[in-house]
Amino acid sequence: MTAAASARIALGPDGADTGAVAVVERAGGEVVALADAEALVWTVSDPTGFPADLPDDIRWVQLPSAGIETWLARGLVDTRRTWTSAIGAYARPVAEHAVALLLAGLRQLPAALAADTWRKHELMPATRTLSGSRVGIYGAGSIARAMIPVLAALGAETVAVNRSGRPVPGAVTTMAAAEAGGFWRSVDHVVVAAPATSETRHLVGAAELEQMRSHAWLVNVARGSLVDTDALLPALDAGRIAGVALDVTEPEPLPEGHWLFGHPRAIVTPHIANPASTLVQGLHDRISENVSRFVRGEGLVGIVDLDSGY
Amino acid sequence: MTAAASARIALGPDGADTGAVAVVERAGGEVVALADAEALVWTVSDPTGFPADLPDDIRWVQLPSAGIETWLARGLVDTRRTWTSAIGAYARPVAEHAVALLLAGLRQLPAALAADTWRKHELMPATRTLSGSRVGIYGAGSIARAMIPVLAALGAETVAVNRSGRPVPGAVTTMAAAEAGGFWRSVDHVVVAAPATSETRHLVGAAELEQMRSHAWLVNVARGSLVDTDALLPALDAGRIAGVALDVTEPEPLPEGHWLFGHPRAIVTPHIANPASTLVQGLHDRISENVSRFVRGEGLVGIVDLDSGY
Repeated sequence: MTAAASARIALGPDGADTGAVAVVERAGGEVVALADAEALVWTVSDPTGFPADLPDDIRWVQLPSAGIETWLARGLVDTRRTWTSAIGAYARPVAEHAVALLLAGLRQLPAALAADTWRKHELMPATRTLSGSRVGIYGAGSIARAMIPVLAALGAETVAVNRSGRPVPGAVTTMAAAEAGGFWRSVDHVVVAAPATSETRHLVGAAELEQMRSHAWLVNVARGSLVDTDALLPALDAGRIAGVALDVTEPEPLPEGHWLFGHPRAIVTPHIANPASTLVQGLHDRISENVSRFVRGEGLVGIVDLDSGY
Repeated sequence: MTAAASARIALGPDGADTGAVAVVERAGGEVVALADAEALVWTVSDPTGFPADLPDDIRWVQLPSAGIETWLARGLVDTRRTWTSAIGAYARPVAEHAVALLLAGLRQLPAALAADTWRKHELMPATRTLSGSRVGIYGAGSIARAMIPVLAALGAETVAVNRSGRPVPGAVTTMAAAEAGGFWRSVDHVVVAAPATSETRHLVGAAELEQMRSHAWLVNVARGSLVDTDALLPALDAGRIAGVALDVTEPEPLPEGHWLFGHPRAIVTPHIANPASTLVQGLHDRISENVSRFVRGEGLVGIVDLDSGY
């Protein structure tokens, strides 16, 4: 990208994020109407209301979400300009949530929170430590990079899976996705943290659950489509895995009374891994970073690759 | 302690921990009957059955628990020999449990696990991150030392309270207990990890809960006596604190149907912070360490100080 003569930034939708005006201005941008702009920063994760026909002068669009599969599915992302997602901007709170879910499973919190009596003789033998375990992270991007030091501090090892197989710092092993057949049986627990693409749809299905260890917890903090919900219930009921902890689901939201609610070995949180406070802060940090780079004509962070689908 | 001419170790109660025989022998000890022994290693945390009159030749007793207040209360610990507890031997799994409880509270798991519908609009604003918060640990011994690097990896700061005020490595501030009046209002969340003594009884009562922040979670992984249970319900119901997460309670076990079971802002686990697997391993590691030291005539780990009461 060449240096911007100026940095005329439109913000949308109108009035959705009034704090973003100051963020753009402090980063060297000028907030203007869409018709006068060379870039558009969109601050609401729902693509409804996004302009179907962007002016030709818009050379860059910043989207607010880390995963942009709904924007892609609606055909909003074209090849006539640069698009950036917020990938990585929320990695730390999401990684924290993944650790919280994993620990909650190992430490028997679903059973403990459902109890109305002291169930020590039942819960103590079932309780496991994360210390000494091997955690597999499938889709080793920014969430994995934020998780690995926490897992290490807790005394757990990480096995990472990514597309390239290029070693992930801090992981004891990194596998390329195409050669990760042995992954599922090689780890104590699995965290999925990959983008939602056609390749990762139902990444965890009956065959993978079959290979996982009977003491394994499966954690999903990425997108619901990565896990085949229908395969979970038989795997749980047959004791093939110890439990599932999902911040994202398929379908999402889960309908009222879905079996995952209240299942004794399932934890469901309603897509809150990146809570409101860190969502705003993370987005503003990313807007600031990318507007600064746009002003200086530098490469942007989180450029969408239409071939990869994220 | 002078070097043992030999290391004749009795194990009790008989047959309770058959694995301990090999541990003692590998550490250079010889397992003998109590009447022929110069040291006694006790492997069961219930003091019932502990010999009321120990032979004079017993120069050292290893107890299996980190907290030995029940042994002291029964007058079993005399001044005629050296007594060691297992203090510190279980610090890592207990620290892990404390982090699990703290994260479970901040990440709204009690409400999420009780839900049978997608409660995103209610739970997302209530969700907080541990990252960016300041965690106070009252009673900064081995559990705190094991927790601090984990909290640091999660992006949280630690304020420590101990008896001496001597700075705890990794804590941003260390306060002496006698001068810790400002502690309760200075931190986002509180973990109590002190031994149970007359000084720490009801360390957290109505006055301390009054000073804590309204978003604070209180975690107890030490002993139930540290927290005044009767003061918790009004503090929770008045919204003075956000929640309590207790692995130890007063009374313990909690009676069936106690209000803490099922309270929407309480988490109770039945004294499982140190689960069966790590309990045995931790005790065996400590027995091995101390028998080796006894054989070599070196100072033992975890010597009980009757003046301090732990």
